[in-house]
Amino acid sequence: MANEVKLLDFWPSMFGMRVRIALAEKGVAYEYVEEDLRNKSPLLLQMNPIHKKIPVLVHNGKPISESSIIVQYIDETWKDRAPLLPSDPYERAQARFWVDFIDKKLYDETRKTWGSKGEEQEAGKRGMIAILKQLEEVLGEKAFFGGECLGFLDIGLIGFSSWFYSYETIGKFSIEAECPKIMAWVKRCLQKESVSKSLPDPMKVYPFVLEIMKALGLD
Amino acid sequence: MANEVKLLDFWPSMFGMRVRIALAEKGVAYEYVEEDLRNKSPLLLQMNPIHKKIPVLVHNGKPISESSIIVQYIDETWKDRAPLLPSDPYERAQARFWVDFIDKKLYDETRKTWGSKGEEQEAGKRGMIAILKQLEEVLGEKAFFGGECLGFLDIGLIGFSSWFYSYETIGKFSIEAECPKIMAWVKRCLQKESVSKSLPDPMKVYPFVLEIMKALGLD
Repeated sequence: MANEVKLLDFWPSMFGMRVRIALAEKGVAYEYVEEDLRNKSPLLLQMNPIHKKIPVLVHNGKPISESSIIVQYIDETWKDRAPLLPSDPYERAQARFWVDFIDKKLYDETRKTWGSKGEEQEAGKRGMIAILKQLEEVLGEKAFFGGECLGFLDIGLIGFSSWFYSYETIGKFSIEAECPKIMAWVKRCLQKESVSKSLPDPMKVYPFVLEIMKALGLD
Repeated sequence: MANEVKLLDFWPSMFGMRVRIALAEKGVAYEYVEEDLRNKSPLLLQMNPIHKKIPVLVHNGKPISESSIIVQYIDETWKDRAPLLPSDPYERAQARFWVDFIDKKLYDETRKTWGSKGEEQEAGKRGMIAILKQLEEVLGEKAFFGGECLGFLDIGLIGFSSWFYSYETIGKFSIEAECPKIMAWVKRCLQKESVSKSLPDPMKVYPFVLEIMKALGLD
């Protein structure tokens, strides 16, 4: 069967970035379809009628939604190369736990660092740093969360780094000062082409964030 | 290696029920440890320091948290019997998608049917029915979401049925009138010992819900 792979995505999305990295790690060629989230395409609404959100992977006409589910699908479908989840069931469960933790906790905290003011913004900065410190403990002395190679949890987290400059500049704080191990890990990840080619330039994310802030009346 | 399996749980939890059913389907013997959520045990706080929530499965001293992650762990660890997730990657992704949907949407709607009043309660009832109708479409003409056998999505949903009597009695509506296919599916599930022995009596859940309502000043 021919592999027709299409990704419905939006360039600044850290969730979309997960899918781009997973496809790059597996060496899967695909068509990238940029979505305008203020004017969603009929294809997106048809492919993800429940959540109406990117990213959606369309593989031979069949849609898969929710970034962490897509990455697992990619790992299970192209399983002959670059394993993304650990082979040990316990380690798999741990990797899933931490990606789920990122989904449930990290995004909301990061959003407060630029999408709110005053005490809420301060709470967001503290919350974000606390989560990254927790993740530093999970990383320990390993090169990657996946060990020697980039894995599911690395892929789940690294997209946020393209927003770090925006969080720091708008929130007036330094992630590196608080979480040097995470920043060293970010640099290691960016040495991989699968990551560097999948992440946008932080200097391009920054004016995009300023634009949303303006639209929200936060400037 | 000896299999020491312990489940930290709380009897009315539909998330705990998922783990009980999965262990029963696999025929895994385990020690059930009932938690008092108003006075969490040192073991629970030690085993799930991040979320401090049940259920937690402790397998040979190592904890796994988050019910859908635990069920996948059980499926991958005792993989020689009663497969819970489909073998096909696309079907696996779909099963994961719908369980994730239940986690993100259904619980909140069901809670409104008894944990709120007026328009919020009405919205909860409408929201719950809309979700169950969506799931009826996913079920189609199959006996179980998993096909001929109970699978990951059946396990993800069935625990809610032990609360149906409470939702209906407190919210004054009938799930069966709106979603007859779901109710027929519930009855099929309850014919399985793995389900019937893992779910509490709805008549025991009801006074428990009334008790919480009283504590919340909702009576």
